[in-house]
Amino acid sequence: MLQTVQSQPDEMHGVTVSLAASDAVPPPVCWLPIGVVRIVDQTLLPVQLQCMDCSTVDELADAIRRLRVRGAPALGIAGAYGLALAAHLSTTPEAATLLAELESVASTLRGTRPTAVNLPWALDTVMLAAHSAPDDALSIRASVLEAARRIEVENEAAYRTMGTYGAELLGDGMNVLTHCNAGPLACGGIGSALGVIYTAHGQGKRIHVWVDETRPLLQGARLTAWELGQWGIPYTLIADNMAASLMRAGRVDAVLVGADRIAVNGDMANKIGTYGLAVLARAHAIPFYVAAPSSTIDRRIKSGDEIKIEERDAVEVTHHAGNPIAPEGAAVYNPAFDITPAGLVSCIITESGLVRPPFKTGLVEAVSSST
Amino acid sequence: MLQTVQSQPDEMHGVTVSLAASDAVPPPVCWLPIGVVRIVDQTLLPVQLQCMDCSTVDELADAIRRLRVRGAPALGIAGAYGLALAAHLSTTPEAATLLAELESVASTLRGTRPTAVNLPWALDTVMLAAHSAPDDALSIRASVLEAARRIEVENEAAYRTMGTYGAELLGDGMNVLTHCNAGPLACGGIGSALGVIYTAHGQGKRIHVWVDETRPLLQGARLTAWELGQWGIPYTLIADNMAASLMRAGRVDAVLVGADRIAVNGDMANKIGTYGLAVLARAHAIPFYVAAPSSTIDRRIKSGDEIKIEERDAVEVTHHAGNPIAPEGAAVYNPAFDITPAGLVSCIITESGLVRPPFKTGLVEAVSSST
Repeated sequence: MLQTVQSQPDEMHGVTVSLAASDAVPPPVCWLPIGVVRIVDQTLLPVQLQCMDCSTVDELADAIRRLRVRGAPALGIAGAYGLALAAHLSTTPEAATLLAELESVASTLRGTRPTAVNLPWALDTVMLAAHSAPDDALSIRASVLEAARRIEVENEAAYRTMGTYGAELLGDGMNVLTHCNAGPLACGGIGSALGVIYTAHGQGKRIHVWVDETRPLLQGARLTAWELGQWGIPYTLIADNMAASLMRAGRVDAVLVGADRIAVNGDMANKIGTYGLAVLARAHAIPFYVAAPSSTIDRRIKSGDEIKIEERDAVEVTHHAGNPIAPEGAAVYNPAFDITPAGLVSCIITESGLVRPPFKTGLVEAVSSST
Repeated sequence: MLQTVQSQPDEMHGVTVSLAASDAVPPPVCWLPIGVVRIVDQTLLPVQLQCMDCSTVDELADAIRRLRVRGAPALGIAGAYGLALAAHLSTTPEAATLLAELESVASTLRGTRPTAVNLPWALDTVMLAAHSAPDDALSIRASVLEAARRIEVENEAAYRTMGTYGAELLGDGMNVLTHCNAGPLACGGIGSALGVIYTAHGQGKRIHVWVDETRPLLQGARLTAWELGQWGIPYTLIADNMAASLMRAGRVDAVLVGADRIAVNGDMANKIGTYGLAVLARAHAIPFYVAAPSSTIDRRIKSGDEIKIEERDAVEVTHHAGNPIAPEGAAVYNPAFDITPAGLVSCIITESGLVRPPFKTGLVEAVSSST
């Protein structure tokens, strides 16, 4: 289905263009050979499906900070194409100068969001390709773009495989609760957690999804609900604080979420609220599943204690669409993520297979078999 | 401090007037002898502190349904004054006719919100006074107004006593997490859960409050934060889904909430999200306290299974201030309350003292000693 999407000028961020997407949900990030990183502006959904074209690294970095593009794997793709954009824009004929420029851009992009590991992973992967290329600027440019494209393509394939593995866990008639957004917009392809649901749905299993709205930025209400609607998968939206009573009533058969970073021991960082769901799932004997590509596994860290948690602006909690919903000057705590200890995770779904506790060996193998 | 409050015409609901309140937080409901039930319109806070004058029972019933006045004990006072208003408006000289009119009004008011027990309790209390009065319309009118006033006055005194009992549970330097709003606006007086905090604060204990914003209607962000700010008690606002990670980090010493209805076995209904907090508190070995006047204890029901849970309009979840935050037509589940089983409650704070598990005897005694 060719879908033409409403486009309006974005006063804040320069050029935007119409989008023609060949699927029900467009890719969150893509590269246009004219030297543009095109992203779906996720802050405008579900009211408006609109793209934003970044033709400078600063525009892209700003879009990442403002969550116009978000989701750990999508951040990896955006970072990779950010380096492709920098290589495209650079006019230097010197290999060494180009590499230095790329390192500087990688450092900028690395600093935009601290928690998701896919961003530094993608930057490292592309920079390795740059450094491994023949020692001339032209070859480096080509290698950078090729490495970025490979990340996008392999990523998409990974979700198909992951979806097939994960769908084994979902039976016909199940009610699956998900938090935040781990669908196409967060990940590319069919997404991680939603990719598993999409696959099970495609197998003819009747799956119903409880969608946590996911305060403060409502990625569940705005993005997950929209994606499921596009796919025609039945869902019901709830406020985050309603999950517990649904569990008590026996109306949740599994919790299934994505991840932003997974330590070697299986501890994992994901959107704030995930840890609470994991505790609640355990208390109600409900399995708690995590779906994440192997690029989300951080081999350098032993446990979740080493994961830096991003704290974001109070205004995300105190205001909605510019309107105050709390007293002026209210003190606010606004962590974007929390850590769920491995002991609460029933299974991690990767493109290399299902990894069950104890996680350490399985996670290292998942990373190894995918690289 | 005499506080003059901004007043604007309320286009939807007729007469509004300026409010002069002698305290930092005005009473949620009061009776004006001209035949008006004056309420603080809680839907406008914290942006605007504005009153609404109800001069018909229909106006008051509508204000209750729209949550302009809310909170279980405040609903009781509003219901009681609703009967006083009906008695005031009635022109019949016949005692029997007046009693029939009052029964009809009680039935209307009883149907406005199903979960809080304080509303039917107050209606029953006032109707008992009406039926016990000398058999003439004048005496019945006087008895109804006197009974309603007594509910308001005794209610206010109850919170002072409850606050003193409850403050024993709060030590210097404690971080107390609360959900929804169980302060002056919900209860009258100093409130139940917030009254306990207010009392401890007044004793010189340094208390810091974590305020759950309480989706979907944000009573925590809008009302509790505002009340604590008026009192000068330090607080930090969080989204509901942030409580769990604070507990894991050891930053919550107690959870303290109000209640809308408590069964004889100690099961209790309160704002949606309370049950999840109770499970999380138990998982982190944090005490979970409930503060409620004895009028919240429903002697007629044996357990929480008998409590009817109000489900409210989807638009409360899908829209904010008229703006969509979810896809059009999204299916929504929006229960206003949940049931926390007695087994998760550490202590119930009443005006008759602290009631600890097993609750049954203590709760029956609390009700008996207050009546």
